[in-house]
Amino acid sequence: MNKESALLTDLYQLTMTYGYFREGRAEQPVVFDLFFRQLPPGSGYVLAAGLEQAVEYLLNLHFSQEDLAYLAQLNLFDTAFLEFLSTFRFSGDLWAVPEGTPVFPHEPLLQVTAPVAQAQIVETALLNMVNFQSLIATKACRVTLAAKGDPVMEFGLRRAHGPDAGVYGARAAVIGGCVSTSNVRAGQLFGLPVSGTMAHSWVQSFPGELEAFRAYAEAFPDNTLLLVDTYNVLRSGVPNAIQVGRELRQKGLELKGIRIDSGDLAYLSRQARKMLDNAGFPNAIIVASNDLDEETIQDIKTQGAPIDSWGVGTALITSRNYPALGGVYKLAAVQHEGEWVPKLKISENSDKITLPGIKQVVRFYSRDNGVAIADLITLQDEDINDSESMVIFHPLETWKRKTLRNFTCKKLLVPVIQAGELIMQLPGVTEIREYSRQEQARFWEEHKRLKFPQKYIVDLSEGLWNLRAGLLEPAGRALNGSK
Amino acid sequence: MNKESALLTDLYQLTMTYGYFREGRAEQPVVFDLFFRQLPPGSGYVLAAGLEQAVEYLLNLHFSQEDLAYLAQLNLFDTAFLEFLSTFRFSGDLWAVPEGTPVFPHEPLLQVTAPVAQAQIVETALLNMVNFQSLIATKACRVTLAAKGDPVMEFGLRRAHGPDAGVYGARAAVIGGCVSTSNVRAGQLFGLPVSGTMAHSWVQSFPGELEAFRAYAEAFPDNTLLLVDTYNVLRSGVPNAIQVGRELRQKGLELKGIRIDSGDLAYLSRQARKMLDNAGFPNAIIVASNDLDEETIQDIKTQGAPIDSWGVGTALITSRNYPALGGVYKLAAVQHEGEWVPKLKISENSDKITLPGIKQVVRFYSRDNGVAIADLITLQDEDINDSESMVIFHPLETWKRKTLRNFTCKKLLVPVIQAGELIMQLPGVTEIREYSRQEQARFWEEHKRLKFPQKYIVDLSEGLWNLRAGLLEPAGRALNGSK
Repeated sequence: MNKESALLTDLYQLTMTYGYFREGRAEQPVVFDLFFRQLPPGSGYVLAAGLEQAVEYLLNLHFSQEDLAYLAQLNLFDTAFLEFLSTFRFSGDLWAVPEGTPVFPHEPLLQVTAPVAQAQIVETALLNMVNFQSLIATKACRVTLAAKGDPVMEFGLRRAHGPDAGVYGARAAVIGGCVSTSNVRAGQLFGLPVSGTMAHSWVQSFPGELEAFRAYAEAFPDNTLLLVDTYNVLRSGVPNAIQVGRELRQKGLELKGIRIDSGDLAYLSRQARKMLDNAGFPNAIIVASNDLDEETIQDIKTQGAPIDSWGVGTALITSRNYPALGGVYKLAAVQHEGEWVPKLKISENSDKITLPGIKQVVRFYSRDNGVAIADLITLQDEDINDSESMVIFHPLETWKRKTLRNFTCKKLLVPVIQAGELIMQLPGVTEIREYSRQEQARFWEEHKRLKFPQKYIVDLSEGLWNLRAGLLEPAGRALNGSK
Repeated sequence: MNKESALLTDLYQLTMTYGYFREGRAEQPVVFDLFFRQLPPGSGYVLAAGLEQAVEYLLNLHFSQEDLAYLAQLNLFDTAFLEFLSTFRFSGDLWAVPEGTPVFPHEPLLQVTAPVAQAQIVETALLNMVNFQSLIATKACRVTLAAKGDPVMEFGLRRAHGPDAGVYGARAAVIGGCVSTSNVRAGQLFGLPVSGTMAHSWVQSFPGELEAFRAYAEAFPDNTLLLVDTYNVLRSGVPNAIQVGRELRQKGLELKGIRIDSGDLAYLSRQARKMLDNAGFPNAIIVASNDLDEETIQDIKTQGAPIDSWGVGTALITSRNYPALGGVYKLAAVQHEGEWVPKLKISENSDKITLPGIKQVVRFYSRDNGVAIADLITLQDEDINDSESMVIFHPLETWKRKTLRNFTCKKLLVPVIQAGELIMQLPGVTEIREYSRQEQARFWEEHKRLKFPQKYIVDLSEGLWNLRAGLLEPAGRALNGSK
């Protein structure tokens, strides 16, 4: 209900658009880039996500009569402008990095080319959708890296920032590597596997734990995964689970396993494993949950805990240690008399100086082993000759050079919407997860360490570097007030 | 679109409900409490929020044909159960603490009395809505306390966790004390004041800053608030704003003020203030933004910065330092043969032991000065005689006693939904903010310090304490395996 609204924007997007409209410039073509400047702490890369929702938003964008009536009573805009908004649609182009792609600071994830009125109004919603999903996909990637191949289930809906955060967060979590979600709505919308069995309240609502387990086994004979920590894991939960497992066997069925949701997961899982094995249930799995994140999972695994599967809630769905990816949306070019004029935003902080012009991101892979070597942010029309070697250099410490040899390369930004029409088939979530897995497999493990990962090389092409240097000099003089 | 869905729940709520249904217990009345166990770091209290959305959700709850078809193909449930869900409605009772009320750990914010099938299915969505909005209202309260009466505007939509987080987060921010939001959709839905003027891209899109400012003043002559940090605040932005201010005066209009969005806000605002004053614009306001939170606002104010108004984005809308209020939803009582049987969840961690039975929260105020003295969590049917003095005691350190004299008291949990029908008029957001302001004014300033606030007394009534002690003893024996 909120994503569908054209009013899902900051008021200043509308006041600026009104200003452009009054200036007769509403239709002036511009290019905006959406990118982030910093990796989350300890992350070697971000996984791009949220494109599907951004595309749906752009394709459906319009102001309803109700919206226009609301804007009218703000007494900020004149009738001509409201008239203009009444036929407002997104008629521009969107280029984007496919969801699930590892991306790096300053690389445009989205590039919007549209009349300024359109490009401006969509800023806030695009940032909202891409910032959040990329954040959660990245966090899920870290959590699943820590689990080293064990299945990770997303369990966070109750702690997500509202309904959408639960639903789109679950989508992003699966893109980032989770196998399933507890969120049924997300399962319905995106065809994600859903998982879940019982809570403590189930066990409490019966006179005893054994009755509760038996009743569950009756209802779900093929999926008897029993929560064993309502009273006492080792003295009550596991013995009762084993008892129910024996009763299932008499019917030719097998206990699926147990879940432990409190206490010392390393110790309890080791003891529970022994008890299950000794009782003849070596195939019963052990699922762990309880306020887990990538660090606790890594630690518990280091201690040799025989846990088969992990349920991760709050820390994943809120990206608890870093709950906002600071994505921004910056003007890159303005069309003036039919010519694109590159634009630069200057700042005293070098990291905040933008990259001017219409750009592309090129990823280089070694032909020897297929591994990603470096990215180059280029101007859109620059061609890379992959039959020759090529020297790239660090944009600030320009003496840091690297010669690329024997490479293939790929342009990451692809056209998605052209003149307001979708021109590609967007992949489903599990397809995105598989693509992401393959792309991530092309990066050295050093970039995937959970702490202090090796920094991946992202340089600027000579063309872009020169363009920026040329614009920086006069801008820098203005900044320092020396003109 | 997501809040309206009955599938906005964890799968285990449905599997458990199926289990109850198969046991013939789906209609068994139960009571669940929604509460949190820990205050956010440095907060003396939490502001309850999210009730309106929880109520809308409960009143509209139903499974659509599409939902039932989705559940059917999961192959988990039988036809009789899907039939049962097809007429499923919330027919129970909801009691709640009014939004904007300061609340404390273990106090029920919501109390749901309903057939177990209903009470179980709604758990996840209720937690989702109340956890998030209470979190953000509390954060907004901290930010506005730091601003000491200066207006604070909510600017966070672009960094919110999806569309709903932006919209409901803005609502909660206003409950917590913000004067307005940049989020137009939130303004439309909840009648909140909206604010916003221009971004750097506006200034960049003109040949020069002065032209950009003039064009804005032309479009918004009554609301000319100019963003002065695109190039250089003191050398370019403020002089150009003053120039436009002079041009406005010639038309009988006044410059509203300036906004500074980067650099050292304390230094720049002091210099800008001097320049504006010297140029004859003492009434032009200075608005500050740029990654602010309660700590930076407090520090900048301590340095005497003449800032009139604050725009706060990421840190507020994500509650960056603590992005999840750990609200839980626990079984308190089960009806058995017409009698309510109190239920207790035991844990090795005392803080996780629940409060059994059907409860009320009573707040005591001094008759002398109207100040809140203590809260008592009681059984629902306990009466407090406010003509006598009363001794209360700490639930763990029971020797810590306090005698309450000359008090009035108020029951915080009020009936909101009865037998599935709304029985009160829910207040609007600005009304809630005003109520919250008044309630907070009844608490000592010591509870509002931003660091190490004084702990407010929340004790259990003797009746509740005895009930719990009686249930704890056998449960404790079970926990320790000594039975």
